[in-house]
Amino acid sequence: MRYAVIGTGAVGGYYGGLLARHGLDVHFLLHSDYIHVKKSGLVVESKDGDFVLPQVQAYSRPEDMPPCDVVIVALKTTQNAQLAAILPHVVKEKGIVVVLQNGLGLESDIARIVPHATILGGLCFLCSNKIGPGHIKHIDHGTIVLGEYAQEYRPCGITDNLELLSREFEQAGVLVKLSDNLGEARWRKLVWNVPFNGLSVVLDATTAQIMGCPATRSLARDIMIEVVTGANKCGYSVEEQYADDMLLRTEKMAVYKTSMKLDFERGMPLEIEKMYWRPVAEAESAGYVMTAVRTLALQLEYWDGRCAIES
Amino acid sequence: MRYAVIGTGAVGGYYGGLLARHGLDVHFLLHSDYIHVKKSGLVVESKDGDFVLPQVQAYSRPEDMPPCDVVIVALKTTQNAQLAAILPHVVKEKGIVVVLQNGLGLESDIARIVPHATILGGLCFLCSNKIGPGHIKHIDHGTIVLGEYAQEYRPCGITDNLELLSREFEQAGVLVKLSDNLGEARWRKLVWNVPFNGLSVVLDATTAQIMGCPATRSLARDIMIEVVTGANKCGYSVEEQYADDMLLRTEKMAVYKTSMKLDFERGMPLEIEKMYWRPVAEAESAGYVMTAVRTLALQLEYWDGRCAIES
Repeated sequence: MRYAVIGTGAVGGYYGGLLARHGLDVHFLLHSDYIHVKKSGLVVESKDGDFVLPQVQAYSRPEDMPPCDVVIVALKTTQNAQLAAILPHVVKEKGIVVVLQNGLGLESDIARIVPHATILGGLCFLCSNKIGPGHIKHIDHGTIVLGEYAQEYRPCGITDNLELLSREFEQAGVLVKLSDNLGEARWRKLVWNVPFNGLSVVLDATTAQIMGCPATRSLARDIMIEVVTGANKCGYSVEEQYADDMLLRTEKMAVYKTSMKLDFERGMPLEIEKMYWRPVAEAESAGYVMTAVRTLALQLEYWDGRCAIES
Repeated sequence: MRYAVIGTGAVGGYYGGLLARHGLDVHFLLHSDYIHVKKSGLVVESKDGDFVLPQVQAYSRPEDMPPCDVVIVALKTTQNAQLAAILPHVVKEKGIVVVLQNGLGLESDIARIVPHATILGGLCFLCSNKIGPGHIKHIDHGTIVLGEYAQEYRPCGITDNLELLSREFEQAGVLVKLSDNLGEARWRKLVWNVPFNGLSVVLDATTAQIMGCPATRSLARDIMIEVVTGANKCGYSVEEQYADDMLLRTEKMAVYKTSMKLDFERGMPLEIEKMYWRPVAEAESAGYVMTAVRTLALQLEYWDGRCAIES
């Protein structure tokens, strides 16, 4: 099987790096790091053992890549408009696209671009940063929850494609959990991402600071419960207890800067559309207004610079 | 009539200064500025004409003040716990207390301290800053909306005391509008104060920046509508149009830093309790959850330093 990695950053560089180290045929699409990686390869510092791939198959243009059986999408969702120009070149006629991004509605967007592909969605429980060109630092965790997409996010069970990908990833050292309900898995991930990504930017805070203040800890929980309620209104089954479990787990976490906070500090666009507005819109279609989530999203729009620069 | 001003800052210094300039017998309670004002008096720079009061009756201890007919409370509400030790010394047996503060439940608190006094509430539509010890800069406006307090904020009409105070203030050059419904007047003031004070701190923004960004302009309106709805649930009559009128007026305002933003920049405690939690609690008693207001209040608690310092 031939692999492509679209977006070789903290996520794509880490997982793609593991697959390549395992000897799989992996083709990396890069943008700003292309020249560096073409010349010097990839470096992955990992708590599970550092490794270097001195030579990788690197590309700067999707037209130059061979058609691949498995295409891993690991761009920031703010760049997803590029996928329409990338995927048709890279995904084989009956290929598999694995979407390793956060938010909602990613697979349905991609299904419109490559309607004949199988589309899997993956939720990465990964602490990883890109700390330099072609240089990934894997801090902790790494499990992927993988589910298959069917039209309108109908649950479609544990498919052969899921089993196949799971085996490939696990052989390369990636823990995979399979989900028979991708939509629900995506909403569950949002239960943590929505409060902690947003609040970390708006409050200029680490997770420890958010949790250390009774007011913002309580606000984080309020927002989690709103997302849980949104999920349930949309027909998924997520318990309030799940929010409290996540809260407890966050309390025990080391001081952690969310990915949105890192993006913000680097002056990169924030993933507001897929992580906030899509869930808000889906919940509203189901008759539920997520007011606190909406409040946070509007504040994020301000910090995202689209506004702050104007005035 | 003998006047006392409790809190000689942007509000108390300005209105008290006007009364004293008009020749009224005004006694000023001061804290940090006492020695300066005792020695050098009060300076008011005003768009309506600067004036200096080289000598004012200044006090640092309420015990030293004479009993007064009219006591103007112009402290920050974060200092209201001091009123129990101040007012019994300063308010005559049948005196009048005029509460020139923002928020809810201020008069009912004071009624417990001086049960025999008449209590009036005043909403100041005033742009004024204290720019140095005993030095007030009056930027714009100055109208006071004045209403009388009756138990549980029952509307009690335009009373003789309101007429009396209105005449006294107007002779000194202060525009006064009388309200027959103090509770409603206080809620109306919150329609502007809640969004713009809170957002200016959380977003580190002027009113022009909040209004200049479509996202935060829309958020300000959402919050205004929540406050309007809260007021109506509590039995007052405030129209949505009132929010839109205020929004339009804010758009036409000069770049303006809210009082909460100024407090924040000076490291002073924020008026969250009276301006946010009381309205949230009153609305909740009436069965309405103001989620966006609550979200903003919890964020303000974080910035208020009670939390930010801990972690």
